[in-house]
Amino acid sequence: MDRLGELRPIFYPRALAVVGVSRDQRKFGSLFLQALLDFGFKGKIYPVNPAGGEILGLTTYPSVRDIPEPVDLAAIMVPAPVVPAVLEDCLAKGVKGAEVFTSGFAETGDERATAIERELTLIARRGIRIIGPNCFGIYCPASGLTLLPGGNFPGESGPVAFITQSGGHAVEFAWEARGRGFSFSKVISYGNGCDLNEADLLEYMAQDDETKIVAMYIEGPREGRRFVRLVRELAPRKPVIIWKAGLTPAGGKAVHSHTASLAGEEAIWDALFKQTAAVPVRSLEELADTVLAFLHLPASTGRRVGVVGGGGGISVAAADACDRVGLDIPPFDGDIQQKLWEILPAAGTSVRNPVDIGVPLVGAQAFERVLGGVASADCIDTIIATQAMFHVLGGKFGPPPDKREGFLQGLVETPAKVRDRFGKPIVIVLPVGGEDVGMIEAEKGRRQIRDQYLSMGIPSYPTLERAARAVANVATYYAKAAQA
Amino acid sequence: MDRLGELRPIFYPRALAVVGVSRDQRKFGSLFLQALLDFGFKGKIYPVNPAGGEILGLTTYPSVRDIPEPVDLAAIMVPAPVVPAVLEDCLAKGVKGAEVFTSGFAETGDERATAIERELTLIARRGIRIIGPNCFGIYCPASGLTLLPGGNFPGESGPVAFITQSGGHAVEFAWEARGRGFSFSKVISYGNGCDLNEADLLEYMAQDDETKIVAMYIEGPREGRRFVRLVRELAPRKPVIIWKAGLTPAGGKAVHSHTASLAGEEAIWDALFKQTAAVPVRSLEELADTVLAFLHLPASTGRRVGVVGGGGGISVAAADACDRVGLDIPPFDGDIQQKLWEILPAAGTSVRNPVDIGVPLVGAQAFERVLGGVASADCIDTIIATQAMFHVLGGKFGPPPDKREGFLQGLVETPAKVRDRFGKPIVIVLPVGGEDVGMIEAEKGRRQIRDQYLSMGIPSYPTLERAARAVANVATYYAKAAQA
Repeated sequence: MDRLGELRPIFYPRALAVVGVSRDQRKFGSLFLQALLDFGFKGKIYPVNPAGGEILGLTTYPSVRDIPEPVDLAAIMVPAPVVPAVLEDCLAKGVKGAEVFTSGFAETGDERATAIERELTLIARRGIRIIGPNCFGIYCPASGLTLLPGGNFPGESGPVAFITQSGGHAVEFAWEARGRGFSFSKVISYGNGCDLNEADLLEYMAQDDETKIVAMYIEGPREGRRFVRLVRELAPRKPVIIWKAGLTPAGGKAVHSHTASLAGEEAIWDALFKQTAAVPVRSLEELADTVLAFLHLPASTGRRVGVVGGGGGISVAAADACDRVGLDIPPFDGDIQQKLWEILPAAGTSVRNPVDIGVPLVGAQAFERVLGGVASADCIDTIIATQAMFHVLGGKFGPPPDKREGFLQGLVETPAKVRDRFGKPIVIVLPVGGEDVGMIEAEKGRRQIRDQYLSMGIPSYPTLERAARAVANVATYYAKAAQA
Repeated sequence: MDRLGELRPIFYPRALAVVGVSRDQRKFGSLFLQALLDFGFKGKIYPVNPAGGEILGLTTYPSVRDIPEPVDLAAIMVPAPVVPAVLEDCLAKGVKGAEVFTSGFAETGDERATAIERELTLIARRGIRIIGPNCFGIYCPASGLTLLPGGNFPGESGPVAFITQSGGHAVEFAWEARGRGFSFSKVISYGNGCDLNEADLLEYMAQDDETKIVAMYIEGPREGRRFVRLVRELAPRKPVIIWKAGLTPAGGKAVHSHTASLAGEEAIWDALFKQTAAVPVRSLEELADTVLAFLHLPASTGRRVGVVGGGGGISVAAADACDRVGLDIPPFDGDIQQKLWEILPAAGTSVRNPVDIGVPLVGAQAFERVLGGVASADCIDTIIATQAMFHVLGGKFGPPPDKREGFLQGLVETPAKVRDRFGKPIVIVLPVGGEDVGMIEAEKGRRQIRDQYLSMGIPSYPTLERAARAVANVATYYAKAAQA
């Protein structure tokens, strides 16, 4: 099936009708129109409003049928009972797709509302593809489409697709991505999925060359069997990271009143994750953390990690955290230990694995030698090193103020050097440290350092737990993908 | 045993000898001396250095024996082989206690070093109590004692004691506390625990009226059986929160090279946590989060939670997260649902539990009515509400700039009002939102709002997962404490 061709008018519409726009600028219709204008939609926009006249400088039309030129996509936000009639207009006009933002369908549990949603499904079969209802729509930077609240979203395209039943998560994930330096090919909030569902959208992403990694938030699949088949086929060549929500009894109930989904069936999902290379995650944070790891870590990322930290307690915590997510921490042999003893003082340090450098930070030269020593160990695939830079950024430790920048800069450049020399991936833990208001400048500095790392392809995380989990997710994926 | 009297000279020394101070200001001895002066130690300080002369404006003495006046405590940072001789000097001088910062003892695995540590234990039995070796010492704001790197620690005392084998965690925890608005009675980094150990120190905290909550980081207990007995006695009247590290195989190995502890024995720890009211946690973050919850949540905090959030996906995530930590989310009856329907629009919201308010934030008036509706439900003990204020702080949502402050201020004051009216505890989730550098001002605003909440006794957390876990820890504790 040529999903690319079929869904092109939806993701890259040349002309868009916005149905349900009123002069009240606080209503969703006007907010969406404003968001489109702010974001810079690249095609033509036709607001539809029975009252006629101009809105935000654009001529309105009484109905979709009255628009004088061809229309690819309709964004619909009229009340639920009116949606079928608008879709009929769209069919008559030859519109190819619709994103139905309106909620108040099957998710209410109300019989009449559920019947209207069934009507939408039947209308779709007659020649229009529907995203929604009960959704925030599509964000596609390349065409200038954006979500309902998304006027100030980043304009750059990137390699990540996010397919989500929750509009709130769509918006939050787009913001989370900024702090991790990645951009999207498409974000699709598809809500109740009355027509286009998780399977259709995944099939599209399989064919979409712009998309290298697929992230998903699913409450209840509409075509479970087909979805599993598609995941099995796609996952070995493009990472598919799935946050399946509602797997607990309480979550399952919440899922029903959110997108009228039937969740549960933990066994089926367990099987999916066991039998395919799909990567399961349990929160938006882990989803974003894992995408970040996939973007920067190579296929050689393995589960045998070398851990470097400053402070014995931190090393113990690191070992526990790695072990809990299934990473191995192989002990170093005598040669590697000897190499590390030549760099570190004997007291207050450890040269086993984890390596304890004894203080929060050592200078760049020593750090390079420590990382190099660890990277040179045959038993190590991947390195996780904690750099508690907040101590220096907050002025609590390290060189005098005039030497701080140089000290930190040397450290920041070290991991990429060692990675390139030894060909082993390095992940950095960059703790926030104190979160008091007085540390806000230190936090700014920390985020800037994180961005510098990113520019060198080094992913970093605020906690060891999150770094270990992201590495474990990537390592497990590549091990499975190699067998598939 | 009168631990208060016995350990008074250690926590509240009137005179302190600092042994191992040189003119090299980068060495630990000088750094510690400087930290003491910066922090404002309230007693007399006698630096000990064989070379004599003055250091940092203080007269030095060739040995402890040469100090002309009585000394309560000695802080020792000479090389390991010299420590026994210094302790002999202390004994001869009648010094009551010593904190031995020096590392390079049993944790190295070296036989000779282990033998020296045994010597320390034997010297202690002759009349001096030792903290350490391989530690960062004691932070006691009331007496002006501070940790090795702790010159800029907060000067206020508070109700929390932290007893830790890791000096690194001692320092980090003291900083974590600032962002959560709590202060310490004492923080004790006791390292290898050659003399005073987890049991002795817990016994002291049991008797110490200044201490209301005891947090602990333990790698390997020195007197396991006695410790369990003390925990069983103390936990029902003072919360004892224990992060037991090294319970995984990899963590257990790391523990040995850190503080020469034998970890493992998961079964024993499982039993401890099942049979006593002690609260188990698995990271420094959870330890600090749980202390925060104990400081503000009453004994009536129960596991039946009412959850309020904006966005259906967020409600589902909340339900899953609560369920995973053992919290119940009872469904509301028709009356409560009716009450909520009168406030919220029918579409895009949910009045079951979790309550989905449909948008990230509603105004203070509506928020107060929603919280009140939930608090009025008999089936609810505790409320967790997400307030995604970063949307407004980052200027992405909500009222125009000139109305933002008033809008947020109204919201900030609401939870305490509802709590006081209904007598039910309320916990707020205050997400960070985007972590890009451009959001740093929004993050500053978020931290300020968190501090405002704290001033009203409302604990807040950046994620639902962390809030749910902290509430579950407190609820479990009070249920167990009531039975003990």
